[in-house]
Amino acid sequence: MPELRKDPVVGRWVIISTDRARRPSDVATEPVRPTGANCVFCEGNERKTPPELLAGRAPGSAADGPGWSYRIVPNKFPALRIEGEIDPVGEGLFDRMNGVGAHEVVIETPRHDGSLATLSPEAVTDVLVACRDRIRDLKQDPRFQYILIFKNHGEAAGASLEHPHSQLIATPIIPVMVAEELAGSGRYFEIKERCVWCDIVRQETRTQRRIVLEGDGFTALAPFAPRLPFETWILPTRHRAAFEESGVDELRGLARVLGEFLRRMNGVLRDPPYNFMLHTAPLRDAPVESFHWHLEIIPKLTKVAGFEWGSGFYINPIPPEDAAAALRAPGG
Amino acid sequence: MPELRKDPVVGRWVIISTDRARRPSDVATEPVRPTGANCVFCEGNERKTPPELLAGRAPGSAADGPGWSYRIVPNKFPALRIEGEIDPVGEGLFDRMNGVGAHEVVIETPRHDGSLATLSPEAVTDVLVACRDRIRDLKQDPRFQYILIFKNHGEAAGASLEHPHSQLIATPIIPVMVAEELAGSGRYFEIKERCVWCDIVRQETRTQRRIVLEGDGFTALAPFAPRLPFETWILPTRHRAAFEESGVDELRGLARVLGEFLRRMNGVLRDPPYNFMLHTAPLRDAPVESFHWHLEIIPKLTKVAGFEWGSGFYINPIPPEDAAAALRAPGG
Repeated sequence: MPELRKDPVVGRWVIISTDRARRPSDVATEPVRPTGANCVFCEGNERKTPPELLAGRAPGSAADGPGWSYRIVPNKFPALRIEGEIDPVGEGLFDRMNGVGAHEVVIETPRHDGSLATLSPEAVTDVLVACRDRIRDLKQDPRFQYILIFKNHGEAAGASLEHPHSQLIATPIIPVMVAEELAGSGRYFEIKERCVWCDIVRQETRTQRRIVLEGDGFTALAPFAPRLPFETWILPTRHRAAFEESGVDELRGLARVLGEFLRRMNGVLRDPPYNFMLHTAPLRDAPVESFHWHLEIIPKLTKVAGFEWGSGFYINPIPPEDAAAALRAPGG
Repeated sequence: MPELRKDPVVGRWVIISTDRARRPSDVATEPVRPTGANCVFCEGNERKTPPELLAGRAPGSAADGPGWSYRIVPNKFPALRIEGEIDPVGEGLFDRMNGVGAHEVVIETPRHDGSLATLSPEAVTDVLVACRDRIRDLKQDPRFQYILIFKNHGEAAGASLEHPHSQLIATPIIPVMVAEELAGSGRYFEIKERCVWCDIVRQETRTQRRIVLEGDGFTALAPFAPRLPFETWILPTRHRAAFEESGVDELRGLARVLGEFLRRMNGVLRDPPYNFMLHTAPLRDAPVESFHWHLEIIPKLTKVAGFEWGSGFYINPIPPEDAAAALRAPGG
């Protein structure tokens, strides 16, 4: 059983996930990158994954067989386990609890060489709607406080499998990054009675200096203080706290903006490794007035080094104004 | 001039360091790894660095010439600039200030193939004393709030030069990672009237489960909630808030424990890339009762991926008890 442990000084939780590596030497092993017939996510190999939870299927096709456009399956090597109770216990001054959660894989296309950048807007919309529906389903489990959807694309971004996929992890605790956004945006709302992300979108739209892309109800922008070169946020232009409340029309808009952004990024940065992370409101007692969901996209062009690890400061050699200008150019 | 920018939601500062890369395409460039005659840190090439600030020199040898055991020089491509005033300004809802600070390089040995693991304890002591003395000197500059000493060893750990070196960055703001430790340890002290790190050392010494190495006034341990496999902290066994108050005898003890730890780590993990970061008390108004300086060492065996970036949770496949046992074994 994986375990959640809390650092007694800063309160940071880590997942000690012993199911994923058994011996110390295991961590140094290179990730496997099977292709074609050996890829567990390719069409025809459906039996190599746990049974599907949700899939886009051709009429008449059977579950866990061919004939799908996307599949969502439990992760075969989950960081957190779906079974069991949270059961918090102390160990002297330390705190731990069972690593209860959900860990699912969103296989975005049956094609090994596909990608969110090249799929049709309709296909991307279907994937986004499926993610929304998984959140809606998992939200009914009272053990979970938060659901993070994220993507690791390319080895430098931490991907261990090449086939296009995203992941979903439901956690029994609100992650610290989200807690910090909740706290900061809550303080801002208390003073201004406005959502800080709404104010950011308004100010950026006025100056245009860091805007990458606008339209279809979404704004893609380079944040004022980006951690990494070409970091980009995509936000619904109008206030929206929870991703899972999005309608299909809204997600169609997101699919178009996301696809266009990824194509521009791939053009400017020559298909970089990248991560994205969806920050949405917590599942319970969400502050709907002060939180605004957003997708954070970070190409992995530089390495995080000792200064970042030790300080929490990031050194970014590319001003976001220059990054936004480069990403705006392909469109005119 | 580099710029410090603050994220308006979470308050995280980043350094936009335009001196280090001029065009977007620059960030994708591979780091240069010169060796031998071309290495700017090797003996004989002293004129290729800015003039030395401090060096361990053979009697009669001239500054910026051969005949040294270590040199501390300004970084030729500093993330922060020593000239100028901090000058904070607003831009609508955003905050920025000049990137004022110091960025120095500690060249630990004239030998390209040397390392802190293989240098004599006396040579490592000299380097640590020199670092202490640079902190004491920079502390007199009222613009600086904090000094972080860190090391990037190996390309995966963010090193751009192979020659053994550490770095020192003085910042006009207390870094968020340190601020979180100050806040957490301050809360603990308020309740317990004890230093949390002293309590950790006591509890770990009693159980021995996560102790790696003890002696010479220092304890090396695997933290209860490590972010990364084989993360290790080295702390003075007795309470000490500020590194720069260490006497030469204490630093001699640290040199022995650090050298021994690095040799064991290199043996168990086969010379991994790694970072270390020295967390000491802030330069001004330091809470001497609740803060305890420590060196955090993180081998870079796994990649930080979207889940970590999005949540602040870390997934660690190696329990610290197993890591400590593996690192204890070489000594008996």
